[in-house]
Amino acid sequence: MTFSYVSHLFCPKCSLTCSSDQVRNLCVCGSPLLVSYHYPKMKEELSHDILKDRQPTLWRYHELLPIKNPDYITSMGEGMTPIVAMNRYGQKLGIQHLWMKDEGLLPTGSFKARGAAVGVSKAKELGLSEIAMPTNGNAGAAWALYAARAGLKSHIVMPLDAPLITRNEVSISGANLYLMDGLISDAGKVVAESVQGKDWFDVSTLKEPYRIEGKKTMGFEIAEQFDWQVPDVILYPTGGGVGLIGIYKAFKELIEIGWLEQDKLPRLVAVQAKGCAPIVKAFENNQEESEMWPNASTAAFGINVPKALGDFLILEAIYETNGTAIAIEDGEISAEQKEIAELEGAFICPEGAATFAAVKKLRANNWIQAQEKVVCLNTGMGIKYPESVNVLAPTLEVGEHL
Amino acid sequence: MTFSYVSHLFCPKCSLTCSSDQVRNLCVCGSPLLVSYHYPKMKEELSHDILKDRQPTLWRYHELLPIKNPDYITSMGEGMTPIVAMNRYGQKLGIQHLWMKDEGLLPTGSFKARGAAVGVSKAKELGLSEIAMPTNGNAGAAWALYAARAGLKSHIVMPLDAPLITRNEVSISGANLYLMDGLISDAGKVVAESVQGKDWFDVSTLKEPYRIEGKKTMGFEIAEQFDWQVPDVILYPTGGGVGLIGIYKAFKELIEIGWLEQDKLPRLVAVQAKGCAPIVKAFENNQEESEMWPNASTAAFGINVPKALGDFLILEAIYETNGTAIAIEDGEISAEQKEIAELEGAFICPEGAATFAAVKKLRANNWIQAQEKVVCLNTGMGIKYPESVNVLAPTLEVGEHL
Repeated sequence: MTFSYVSHLFCPKCSLTCSSDQVRNLCVCGSPLLVSYHYPKMKEELSHDILKDRQPTLWRYHELLPIKNPDYITSMGEGMTPIVAMNRYGQKLGIQHLWMKDEGLLPTGSFKARGAAVGVSKAKELGLSEIAMPTNGNAGAAWALYAARAGLKSHIVMPLDAPLITRNEVSISGANLYLMDGLISDAGKVVAESVQGKDWFDVSTLKEPYRIEGKKTMGFEIAEQFDWQVPDVILYPTGGGVGLIGIYKAFKELIEIGWLEQDKLPRLVAVQAKGCAPIVKAFENNQEESEMWPNASTAAFGINVPKALGDFLILEAIYETNGTAIAIEDGEISAEQKEIAELEGAFICPEGAATFAAVKKLRANNWIQAQEKVVCLNTGMGIKYPESVNVLAPTLEVGEHL
Repeated sequence: MTFSYVSHLFCPKCSLTCSSDQVRNLCVCGSPLLVSYHYPKMKEELSHDILKDRQPTLWRYHELLPIKNPDYITSMGEGMTPIVAMNRYGQKLGIQHLWMKDEGLLPTGSFKARGAAVGVSKAKELGLSEIAMPTNGNAGAAWALYAARAGLKSHIVMPLDAPLITRNEVSISGANLYLMDGLISDAGKVVAESVQGKDWFDVSTLKEPYRIEGKKTMGFEIAEQFDWQVPDVILYPTGGGVGLIGIYKAFKELIEIGWLEQDKLPRLVAVQAKGCAPIVKAFENNQEESEMWPNASTAAFGINVPKALGDFLILEAIYETNGTAIAIEDGEISAEQKEIAELEGAFICPEGAATFAAVKKLRANNWIQAQEKVVCLNTGMGIKYPESVNVLAPTLEVGEHL
């Protein structure tokens, strides 16, 4: 039994290949490196029936994950998050089949747990002992806690205005936490400079090849949950875009190994905030790469990324699937959060709410048809952003009634 | 195919029975009512093989849940939370097989989602349209959000000092939230008086029979996750105690239908806070009921219940399983939270941390043996209690290094 069919790393820009048994960050050409597997061998040897008796975690797809020795797996039961029907909201919008994949139901309360679980496991397998990263909050929380579980030391740099609760998560893990009086890009620069000459592994977004392997399991799960079909449209809140790139990679891999029963991919939609929409701008100008967005600002902090390292991969995924990119006002995000809670009972994060605002617009202009199957990714729990709710409640004294 | 094998309601105190098709709160004798099923019929007709192809949610056990018509099910994918190995912590304590069942990975971030999912579904099936309840925070959050999803109106009364984030959850659901300048018992009194003469259903802990049916699914899951065996010891943070009563009921039901492959039940441990330990006191005095705990106070707010309505059922579960009850200092709880995060990567809630502090003590005095299989229930996410972490982090200016 082959635990992992991992083959090698490759550069999607200059096509260089290299071993996955050595520690690698970016390609010499500056591009992220991606992981390749022995697809034809796997197609010949395995069908998706192997999954039937496995636990409902992302590790059920271990053949298409990069860890070779299961002893290095660092897991807290993450994965197989639910696909929740959004019938009342869908009906209001005139969409017959609308779902939310709820990535809040993961350790650390966000989808970042997927990348951290696989990234930390692989770092441990590669013999690393210290990691460093900049973060807008959730990624740092996830990596710090998974690193603690693996017995790795971590150094996390977070902007001062990142969500407060994510500070608590990093802090309680025992990581070294630094607050940056600046942007995520400033934090990234500090990390890049600080790892020089040290045995610290820089695990910034796409600077190591394995986080995306964790994120792609969202795509595997969607395919399995739709019984090896795919929905028509998937909307994803896009900052660094690793999830979108990962979902696209997942579907292509499933086609290569013959597990998907259709070869038409879902149309992928990158949802950004009006205050930070470099991918939307590049898409509208039909460009292959984005430009740095000046003075980036949005309350949906997780997608406040002015220039993503993997922008060309995000845009490729959109173009190749006949997808689109769309920007949402902060005010719409907050209204959507409230509406989803009142109609569907789900307290979602601002980034997730942006995808529902996008569905509304794309249905209104008929880009989404009434009978299409649509999945929105809610990337985290609303409780991580208490400041997004304005609580109004009367106080009762003993003896008073409702 | 029978969707539910529900039979009737019965009173565990005076043995009265009544229909589960009518709206019921407490028994005429003042005791909570419990749900009974057609166990012999189910034993004859079904084995646990039926579960194999079902979704990993608590609804996989629908035959032993009280909802008769699946159209009334109000679900957000709750259930089948992971059993997480706690190897590093266990090793430190000298326990070879220690696990955490992580109830944080549920909608609304706490185990209360189970009771709310089943309770709200049954309320809807019974034709109710408005619910009212007092809450220490998490239960109100869960019931308000599930009620919103079901299209029911809710009225929630919460003490002023309940965890702040749970206010946000109730508020965003569109529920009527009231803050009580008093204790949970004062809030309960307001609710009891306010429902009089109105069509509001009082869903206070154990005042309706169905919340416990949701909670008992923790027991079903533990049995299934241990491959229809049971662990030796289960520790549960005990306030109202519905989870403990539910787990005990679940195991007894599984024995009745022949699904458990052993008839020795796990020893159940009620873990309380030193500042509010009525069950511990009753257990130590070998009593069948508890007494109201004066001036109850603990930072583990979820277990700050001075007198539980189901105290006699909690104590029965402890006595019948040769279990025990133990009280923990607030300072130990907070130290344990930190240690679990640093060693295991899990940011657990104070109530969950209390169970780990209890394991430490019970191993030290040899009540738990080295080779026994032990499961701690973490009832919610640590991120719901940001004030439980003291963040210390230096601020960096642009140009500084780590």
